[in-house]
Amino acid sequence: MKSIPVGLVGVVGYTGMELCRLLADHPEMTLVRATSRSEAGKPLADVLPHLAGTRLAEMTITAPDMDDLAAHCELVFLAVPHGTAMDMAAELVRRKVRVVDLSADFRLRDPAVYADWYNLEHRHADLLAQAAYGLPELYGPEIAKAVLVANPGCYPTSVLLALAPALEAELVETDGIIADSKSGTTGAGRKPATTTLFCEVHDSFRAYGLGRHRHTPEMEQEVGALARTPVRLSFNPHLLPIGRGVLSTVYTRLTKFVTADEVLAMYRRFYAQRAAALGASWVRVHPPGTWPETRFVRGTMFCDLGILVDPRTNRLVVVSVIDNLCRGASGQALANANLMLGLEPAAGLPPAPLMP
Amino acid sequence: MKSIPVGLVGVVGYTGMELCRLLADHPEMTLVRATSRSEAGKPLADVLPHLAGTRLAEMTITAPDMDDLAAHCELVFLAVPHGTAMDMAAELVRRKVRVVDLSADFRLRDPAVYADWYNLEHRHADLLAQAAYGLPELYGPEIAKAVLVANPGCYPTSVLLALAPALEAELVETDGIIADSKSGTTGAGRKPATTTLFCEVHDSFRAYGLGRHRHTPEMEQEVGALARTPVRLSFNPHLLPIGRGVLSTVYTRLTKFVTADEVLAMYRRFYAQRAAALGASWVRVHPPGTWPETRFVRGTMFCDLGILVDPRTNRLVVVSVIDNLCRGASGQALANANLMLGLEPAAGLPPAPLMP
Amino acid sequence: MKSIPVGLVGVVGYTGMELCRLLADHPEMTLVRATSRSEAGKPLADVLPHLAGTRLAEMTITAPDMDDLAAHCELVFLAVPHGTAMDMAAELVRRKVRVVDLSADFRLRDPAVYADWYNLEHRHADLLAQAAYGLPELYGPEIAKAVLVANPGCYPTSVLLALAPALEAELVETDGIIADSKSGTTGAGRKPATTTLFCEVHDSFRAYGLGRHRHTPEMEQEVGALARTPVRLSFNPHLLPIGRGVLSTVYTRLTKFVTADEVLAMYRRFYAQRAAALGASWVRVHPPGTWPETRFVRGTMFCDLGILVDPRTNRLVVVSVIDNLCRGASGQALANANLMLGLEPAAGLPPAPLMP
Amino acid sequence: MKSIPVGLVGVVGYTGMELCRLLADHPEMTLVRATSRSEAGKPLADVLPHLAGTRLAEMTITAPDMDDLAAHCELVFLAVPHGTAMDMAAELVRRKVRVVDLSADFRLRDPAVYADWYNLEHRHADLLAQAAYGLPELYGPEIAKAVLVANPGCYPTSVLLALAPALEAELVETDGIIADSKSGTTGAGRKPATTTLFCEVHDSFRAYGLGRHRHTPEMEQEVGALARTPVRLSFNPHLLPIGRGVLSTVYTRLTKFVTADEVLAMYRRFYAQRAAALGASWVRVHPPGTWPETRFVRGTMFCDLGILVDPRTNRLVVVSVIDNLCRGASGQALANANLMLGLEPAAGLPPAPLMP
Repeated sequence: MKSIPVGLVGVVGYTGMELCRLLADHPEMTLVRATSRSEAGKPLADVLPHLAGTRLAEMTITAPDMDDLAAHCELVFLAVPHGTAMDMAAELVRRKVRVVDLSADFRLRDPAVYADWYNLEHRHADLLAQAAYGLPELYGPEIAKAVLVANPGCYPTSVLLALAPALEAELVETDGIIADSKSGTTGAGRKPATTTLFCEVHDSFRAYGLGRHRHTPEMEQEVGALARTPVRLSFNPHLLPIGRGVLSTVYTRLTKFVTADEVLAMYRRFYAQRAAALGASWVRVHPPGTWPETRFVRGTMFCDLGILVDPRTNRLVVVSVIDNLCRGASGQALANANLMLGLEPAAGLPPAPLMP
Repeated sequence: MKSIPVGLVGVVGYTGMELCRLLADHPEMTLVRATSRSEAGKPLADVLPHLAGTRLAEMTITAPDMDDLAAHCELVFLAVPHGTAMDMAAELVRRKVRVVDLSADFRLRDPAVYADWYNLEHRHADLLAQAAYGLPELYGPEIAKAVLVANPGCYPTSVLLALAPALEAELVETDGIIADSKSGTTGAGRKPATTTLFCEVHDSFRAYGLGRHRHTPEMEQEVGALARTPVRLSFNPHLLPIGRGVLSTVYTRLTKFVTADEVLAMYRRFYAQRAAALGASWVRVHPPGTWPETRFVRGTMFCDLGILVDPRTNRLVVVSVIDNLCRGASGQALANANLMLGLEPAAGLPPAPLMP
Repeated sequence: MKSIPVGLVGVVGYTGMELCRLLADHPEMTLVRATSRSEAGKPLADVLPHLAGTRLAEMTITAPDMDDLAAHCELVFLAVPHGTAMDMAAELVRRKVRVVDLSADFRLRDPAVYADWYNLEHRHADLLAQAAYGLPELYGPEIAKAVLVANPGCYPTSVLLALAPALEAELVETDGIIADSKSGTTGAGRKPATTTLFCEVHDSFRAYGLGRHRHTPEMEQEVGALARTPVRLSFNPHLLPIGRGVLSTVYTRLTKFVTADEVLAMYRRFYAQRAAALGASWVRVHPPGTWPETRFVRGTMFCDLGILVDPRTNRLVVVSVIDNLCRGASGQALANANLMLGLEPAAGLPPAPLMP
Repeated sequence: MKSIPVGLVGVVGYTGMELCRLLADHPEMTLVRATSRSEAGKPLADVLPHLAGTRLAEMTITAPDMDDLAAHCELVFLAVPHGTAMDMAAELVRRKVRVVDLSADFRLRDPAVYADWYNLEHRHADLLAQAAYGLPELYGPEIAKAVLVANPGCYPTSVLLALAPALEAELVETDGIIADSKSGTTGAGRKPATTTLFCEVHDSFRAYGLGRHRHTPEMEQEVGALARTPVRLSFNPHLLPIGRGVLSTVYTRLTKFVTADEVLAMYRRFYAQRAAALGASWVRVHPPGTWPETRFVRGTMFCDLGILVDPRTNRLVVVSVIDNLCRGASGQALANANLMLGLEPAAGLPPAPLMP
């Protein structure tokens, strides 16, 4: 069987590193280009010593060059900041290369919303209509046909999977939704900054960017699509002293009386159907009274959900847990690539978490 | 100046240890009894080696004996589980000894609510009316006159200080309030259990007890008192991989249009007045757009508040941070004792946090 | 291809959990029995919820029964305490079942040394001669032929791989060796204990068991075998506030003048030869002036070595890093099983670490 | 009583922050100048929000100006990098202001050794003879008379206190000493760098700078002074995923037969005498078979020692624990200032650690 050649732009950040981990063991994809402007010319294992001894170790890092990537790769992962990704994606798509963009550049369908939240005019708004939103359980068929996939943000991934079954069933009010999210520090990236030094994060906890985080419009767009009505929600992130993991506690108000068992069954049915259609089962709904933990999903595509039906306050509260680097970024990117290339959706993705 | 003799029942748990830390440096109180059923007979520093070399090191731990405590102490701190504390408190009060009870036994004014949430009939319901709720900013005068103080729970302390100014000003709706709280693991106590082993908590994050945590009725009672109307709220705790610290993110809906600056001024005015009346200033309201961190209050009585007025969702969101062992338990207990004994409210309490 | 049925005794401890992680993805082995006295009768995913959705999830845990294991398994992993393992191993070997024993019961060739350090008479000393010491780089051929493999301790694994090339080349004195080792807390097991609670380990560091840790005689036996002379060494362990990982700093005195480059070349040559013979390359020697980190090997069989030739003190200092649960226990056990069963040595073992 | 005005150059690094914590509660010193080139003009609490509400909060940070400092301060703490500190110290000393220099600039008596290890010619070598080495237990009287105190490095502090009694008693060989040290990450300072990001340190452990750390000549100088002979030792540091704390495991060879009890008594006697002379008792020697932990000393001046006399290897192994920011830097600086100013040695220093 011929292995499919793929490229990765941005190899030294955390999402690039995570893609390397997965591609070091993918049965049908071969990483043939790994780029980094600052580290070009070095063997990969000089820059990422944990990859010594793997099949990627001897690769020479190159500078990002769209012609070169297009000449050698069937698909390219963009693990670079928003604003930079959009031009690269446009160039690659023009050269008929499939692209999975891990940045935010193609997630928002309305360029005005993008300009508003990202303080940046979109330079390739024409491509927005072509971009599939890469959440496999919700957009599997679109992803499979897409040339350009906008890989979802980590927070939206956790929140959308928490809400989708309830919204589809019109079980909850669409206004007044709150997502109180907590993320591991890998989500803040690998750039040196005082605020993410070990001694500033360790043994502490804080909120940040309340009410104005850029994942807010992405959630509102997709929650609105699920609810078939425009939605405003309150999204508030916090920074956890852990490496990987996002836990979102999502608060809604019930539209009708329902028991915990009914909701549980509805959630499990919803995701069983999606898993059957998709060919991969990644959402696990916890038994009543038990709650997911970020470590339960470490290094995998699992999204674990815990459900509270609270008759005292008439609320449905859903706790949703993912690994922000794997399900919330690089693993989901790989799953999308698998779908785009006609491979098994779970190819190259670890079936069991690293626990403890 | 004569130092006031005090006792501590339950010296080897985390709240007992924290009281020792503070009492090792109190200018006007002397710990004359420290009890532990399991460690009686040993010098304190054999059991708590970090206290070697302090003025408490040579104390011999005794078994808890109410007669002995009453004979030697003007005030006793009870750092024992609920259910156990109520009998000890009753015996001590009968012997005219002042008591600060760190357990939940005297926090709820309605014994039926206590029985309902704690699965236990209250055996000293007659004392409930005498017990002051030991949140100094709200109940300073009552505490100063009390023989028995019910020291608040850590979560309620953080939530009530977040809400008090807004409720007093009728700025927010009293229904639909959500407290999404995150606690360090010292809050789970020092008893061996698989669920609180290092390897089960470290590098992970989880929710627990959603919708049924016992601090819920305590919050509802006190929020109701502030709002002058019965209140139901949704309280949902999570476990942080840190030692000390509680952060509560409290969600409310605004009753009227108000600017962030107005709310900030209102909060600062409220707590400046309370500080003036109390003689101690422990609530710090952060400048707009900045957020408190649990490490900012480590080892102190500070409660730091961050405020979001979100016009998009018409919400007031308050982030509240305390040290659960100091402000949320032993430090607050000491402050209450200071008030009860006519001392400076802040005597023996560290003015600056241990940061980093 | 027929998958080989294997069993696991002791599924709920950390080494049992790690074996499950690996066996959930092994291409040629199938876990057909997973036992736990306390959890028998439950589906595996009820007890280990992170394994829900994997191919092991629906297995029913059974009570350990040697007849049943022998009837269904070609090989059994024993992940139970020393003292318990020896009887199980003897029963299984008698029934012609291959055994990888993760306990210490068959590591020491001299039953008197075992009795001395473990305070226990060996009840199956007759089996000691048959047991292979399961360090693949040193004992590959013996392991492949063995019915019973004594899986090495985590500390000895890290120390022996640090020393083997230098000892073989008679580059260092055999007396005066010091191993200063630091282990993650998974090494302390999963039993509830105050000393391994999160709040007792987190943000702290300590030594323990200096001079009398039970891995000492195991190191001395194997260092002595490499040096062809009896050896006494000083082994001193410490407890790290991390989950997985052992780092040993090993101090020796040089017997002759040698450059850093020569030692580096010697180490790389030694392990290249061993890798070629074994069919798996798991020891990585760092470039001069760079040092391994425990995270570089997380979840893998890698042992990373960093080398200092210090002319000021005439010492060779070797820093050795492994994942104590994977290379130091369950991964090595699986590698040994692969060798015993004639499979690829690296089958089922992740090629790349989870980093960050 | 008049409070003594002091200044602090370098307020925003970790040692500056720690000095602020202590000075916020010092009974006889008042911080009148706090400088930072980058933050000059701002109120202290804007830059260090955890100090809001303390008596330092409203101070305006100034740019460092030696004339201004000399005009207002009796003593100045220099918490700036080596190379920068030496010129400031010289200017202040010339103006008759006492100086405690937390950098390495005046620790090494031989300017050639300084030039060699720090790659820098000393510009004020004439001051070296005047500088006292600020380890109070060893140099109390010199410190009390000094105008310039070189505050010791954190690693040397831990190692010297571990060795002093044994060296004085000629109990151990002076060659072949090894110090295997492990430091919390505050020791790496507060400058942004990839290597000290949370995600690069957390859940991992590594060695660094083996054989060439700049604290080596400082240890050799002072060990040599204690041993009255030139000494070479092997010093090897490691980076711990904790905030504060240094633990050094110090390996020596015994010169004669001695029991553990004898060594313990010798160590306790040595430090009891030093404490009596000094007026402060900060070294605690653990009972046999128990080991110190970094958390036992958190936030204090304590140095905890654990002692192993190992007849198997004829070694004395001493485990030494300090808080690198308090005893290893700012607390020791304050103690030295107390001595220089004729105050109680322990004034302003917390008597009990923050534990847990």
